[in-house]
Amino acid sequence: MSPLRSTLDFLMYDWLQAEQLASRAFYADHSRETFDAVMDTCERIAREKFAPFNRTVDMQEPAFDGEKVILPACTYEARKAYADSGMLSAAQPYAHGGMQLPYVVEAAANSFFACASISIGSNLLTVGNANLLRVHGTPMQQQVFADNEFNGRWAGTMALSEPQAGSSLSDICTRAEPDGDDFANDPLGPRYRLKGNKMWISSGDHELTENIVHLVLAKIPGPDGKLIPGVKGISLFIVPKQLVDTEGQLTGERNDVALAGLNHKLGWRGTTNTLLNFGEGRYPVRGKAGAIGYLVGRPHEGLRCMFHMMNEARIGIGMAATMLGLAGYYASLDYARNRPQGRPMTESGKDASSPQVPIIEHTDVKRMLLAQKAYCEGALALNLYCSRLVDEARTGAPDDATRAKLLLEVLTPIAKSWPSENCLEANSLAIQIHGGYGYTRDFPVEQYWRDNRLNMIHEGTHGIQAADLLGRKVVMQGGAGFQLLAQTMQATIEQAMAHTELHPYATELTKALQELEAATRAAWATGQPQEALANAVPYMQAFGHTVLAWVWLDIACKVLEVDASISVTSNAGRISATRYFYHYELPRITAWLRVVSTRDMTCAQMPVEAF
Amino acid sequence: MSPLRSTLDFLMYDWLQAEQLASRAFYADHSRETFDAVMDTCERIAREKFAPFNRTVDMQEPAFDGEKVILPACTYEARKAYADSGMLSAAQPYAHGGMQLPYVVEAAANSFFACASISIGSNLLTVGNANLLRVHGTPMQQQVFADNEFNGRWAGTMALSEPQAGSSLSDICTRAEPDGDDFANDPLGPRYRLKGNKMWISSGDHELTENIVHLVLAKIPGPDGKLIPGVKGISLFIVPKQLVDTEGQLTGERNDVALAGLNHKLGWRGTTNTLLNFGEGRYPVRGKAGAIGYLVGRPHEGLRCMFHMMNEARIGIGMAATMLGLAGYYASLDYARNRPQGRPMTESGKDASSPQVPIIEHTDVKRMLLAQKAYCEGALALNLYCSRLVDEARTGAPDDATRAKLLLEVLTPIAKSWPSENCLEANSLAIQIHGGYGYTRDFPVEQYWRDNRLNMIHEGTHGIQAADLLGRKVVMQGGAGFQLLAQTMQATIEQAMAHTELHPYATELTKALQELEAATRAAWATGQPQEALANAVPYMQAFGHTVLAWVWLDIACKVLEVDASISVTSNAGRISATRYFYHYELPRITAWLRVVSTRDMTCAQMPVEAF
Repeated sequence: MSPLRSTLDFLMYDWLQAEQLASRAFYADHSRETFDAVMDTCERIAREKFAPFNRTVDMQEPAFDGEKVILPACTYEARKAYADSGMLSAAQPYAHGGMQLPYVVEAAANSFFACASISIGSNLLTVGNANLLRVHGTPMQQQVFADNEFNGRWAGTMALSEPQAGSSLSDICTRAEPDGDDFANDPLGPRYRLKGNKMWISSGDHELTENIVHLVLAKIPGPDGKLIPGVKGISLFIVPKQLVDTEGQLTGERNDVALAGLNHKLGWRGTTNTLLNFGEGRYPVRGKAGAIGYLVGRPHEGLRCMFHMMNEARIGIGMAATMLGLAGYYASLDYARNRPQGRPMTESGKDASSPQVPIIEHTDVKRMLLAQKAYCEGALALNLYCSRLVDEARTGAPDDATRAKLLLEVLTPIAKSWPSENCLEANSLAIQIHGGYGYTRDFPVEQYWRDNRLNMIHEGTHGIQAADLLGRKVVMQGGAGFQLLAQTMQATIEQAMAHTELHPYATELTKALQELEAATRAAWATGQPQEALANAVPYMQAFGHTVLAWVWLDIACKVLEVDASISVTSNAGRISATRYFYHYELPRITAWLRVVSTRDMTCAQMPVEAF
Repeated sequence: MSPLRSTLDFLMYDWLQAEQLASRAFYADHSRETFDAVMDTCERIAREKFAPFNRTVDMQEPAFDGEKVILPACTYEARKAYADSGMLSAAQPYAHGGMQLPYVVEAAANSFFACASISIGSNLLTVGNANLLRVHGTPMQQQVFADNEFNGRWAGTMALSEPQAGSSLSDICTRAEPDGDDFANDPLGPRYRLKGNKMWISSGDHELTENIVHLVLAKIPGPDGKLIPGVKGISLFIVPKQLVDTEGQLTGERNDVALAGLNHKLGWRGTTNTLLNFGEGRYPVRGKAGAIGYLVGRPHEGLRCMFHMMNEARIGIGMAATMLGLAGYYASLDYARNRPQGRPMTESGKDASSPQVPIIEHTDVKRMLLAQKAYCEGALALNLYCSRLVDEARTGAPDDATRAKLLLEVLTPIAKSWPSENCLEANSLAIQIHGGYGYTRDFPVEQYWRDNRLNMIHEGTHGIQAADLLGRKVVMQGGAGFQLLAQTMQATIEQAMAHTELHPYATELTKALQELEAATRAAWATGQPQEALANAVPYMQAFGHTVLAWVWLDIACKVLEVDASISVTSNAGRISATRYFYHYELPRITAWLRVVSTRDMTCAQMPVEAF
């Protein structure tokens, strides 16, 4: 069994008891066996169709020949294998051709692909797009667009950002105007003409599928013809690359969506990233410039629809960061086991005539491996935990579902930001273990590091996540979300008190939680957002480390519950990772929280001309 | 005046009083005016011949056509401009065509090139090579080899590592055997035949110069024909690519040194990095395989000769890391001043109808800029301080020189490692400020980040520096080096007590120093190297942060001395950077030192099979 599979099995079955979901009506046909069958299939496809081509897609990045986007053949094959596996509609009901798979199993199964090649596919984007339509689209929109995404015929995008509006979505200026007098009567939805430019659109153009379904944020002008400022003016539209009829057949007419350019990225190169021009007139429809778009949901509620998918999208990024981290961990572990270099330090120094040892024998290499393990397996646990909460929110008893949603609100910024930062650091350690070899393209670790650097940027930057956490999530509903998290941690602390060897960590976590609560109060003591949020990122870093310490303690409890004498090697590894996290990582929170607690304004007050 | 020049001026003249060196005999012809003239020239050449081509050398990395290494034209022009400037022999005596420039001025002047394009040239390597020959070579070796490197005709390399021996130099197995009965009588030095493979050789092959002077570590077999294990068996040889006569003229005979391959790197791509085969017989000399090499110094003392240059080489890497960091800082500062996005947080939230502001107005962006400034200007100060110590060691009064050497021993691992780690982090922040744009190759910051990742690896990895610091430097001579550093810091603390606003920092530094001293004692309390060194890297991180806190406090003292009311904007920036460092950075040392003080064996005791 691969180390990843073994870790996933422990986390899903021993820790999260995912097989219990099969007792719920929607998952009643499932069992550990059916979950395992999905895992087997995904692991195999990832091994055969994704992993061997990870470097290929890095070297042969997307090119535009003036008419079409050119991608290597392996990308087509990887997409086909993924679509054929049924994973695009894994979570959908049987009636829509799905497998009715729990989200946590879907997430675990998808992790194999992310580990093998994060950028060769952008299938999760298509699924997210179709899921949004499943919730907010009309039955016709679902049938025409969502179904054809779930069945693999078409791909989907999310078109939010513009060149001048990245983090600040309220400043988008793509316009959507009613298309003719009968615009409201189109069976595919109220029909508009869109004009504007969209930046950073992943998989924004390609020939992998016969059509691409863009979900586009745009503003419908007010009666004065002006765009409404702020996020309130934003609406959501379906803009297909090729126009289609109500049967989902291409009409043969190209919509007015033009590729304006490919972005050439540091990493994540398997995925096309584009600047798209909507409605510039390159492909006029019925003689007129303007991309045809069908309104989704009600006007001016576009961002709300989009945010509905945000938690899962952010967990998806957290998972991507985690799996890149784990890929580097496995690569550097393999290298460290096989590379002879140097001799162990002994009481009498080093004996130059003794043979060299594999570098995994050196304490500093062990430190770098253990840090990676603690970061990446911890991040995986957190993201699976959040995925399990998604299931609870969907299929749990009403009270459980409410609690799960609330906890998810608080944990999502951490699930996204913590792996983005710490599993990136893990990738740097993986390079370091390889020495000079790690700095070359002959080994995979430099690519993981480059690929992973994206995750602190997309789906809401680190700064955005931090403002969301401290500015909204921990204070919403009078702090109910934070309280629920604290109670959940408290339950783990009490469990841990049953195990003598975990007492010190239970104590440390108690202290950390108190520090975090005190800092949260202190940050908001004056009620001034500009003071409270001045150190939102250090706050998020400390929050994340506390959450991860809790995750590891909970895992350690489970290990001791199922294997009291720690006789299984991998369980010994988990206990060591817990110890590492409490000895080396958790103590870092004090420095982060210090500036939060004092509402330190050093940065805020720096005069811009003094840089 | 460029921001870099202005920072250099403050550090060199206000802080380090570099012009006082002109009172020493060797520098007697110099003055601030002559120093400034050198700085002007270098800044101009760097701006004209280096900076515009930094992306070019990244995109057009070295290629091998089977016969020759192909480099872009800009690399030839940059090298020519550098050689023509006289900087290769800047520190050499007038008698050898040099400028008798102090090392600190040479380092400052070279920083312009490093900031403009770190990899387009490898001139410091040539200078380091020639400097070594100046110290350890015979007069004939100096005249033939060193002089032709200093005058720009030839380039130089350092050939230490082998594919199987990177950090562990004691395991090199390149053999050097006497070349014929008259081997001892060659006017160029005792003549040997070398056979072996050398890895990671920067500028190991190219057509930039008519010849390349390799300095090669190899082992002379003992009487039994076997190589002596350990570092004691290592000798040093000059191995020219083209054979030369005693007049320094090429004989027309190629030496048996063959390019076996180019390494394809993550960054630093302007510099060729090679695997070289010595003596494989591709270019037989006088009908025989074996590269001709001339012994430098005495047999078996090769590593000692090489280490003689190590301090300066390591300061050079620290400078490289620093300048990449600063390049990213300047780029992101420029971006932040000009990119409108979002609105400032006010007491009443955000007003969507107000115009967007440049992102430099956002506190979190200021935090990322101030962190970069504190890291990179602090690192620059430390490296210039060390460079000034080199001058003191060379030209100071005997007692001063001894003290400077001792302090340099302790500080060098920090001068190398601290910028490598923290200015890399600065580069990551520079990307983050750019958002998605920073992740593209349309902006320079992603390249700085890639280029900088090398610095924790070459010239002794992070782990090697840490073992050197805690295993050797702080304990050597009964801890005299550490004591001297502590006294030096103490002097700054006392100065700082004269300024009310610096009291808290003086107190914090006092505490940090005490923590560091206590941790050093605790690490060695059992006298067991494997326990003391188990956490050498966290120790070095804490040591480095303490050193940088001292540097910033010393700078703040100087600011208040020359500008008591802090009326100059750049001085206000320096005080803010000091404040940032004490509030956000120095508190981190506690977590690092905790594992050192407890001699934490979590990593050391991790069973290799439990990863």
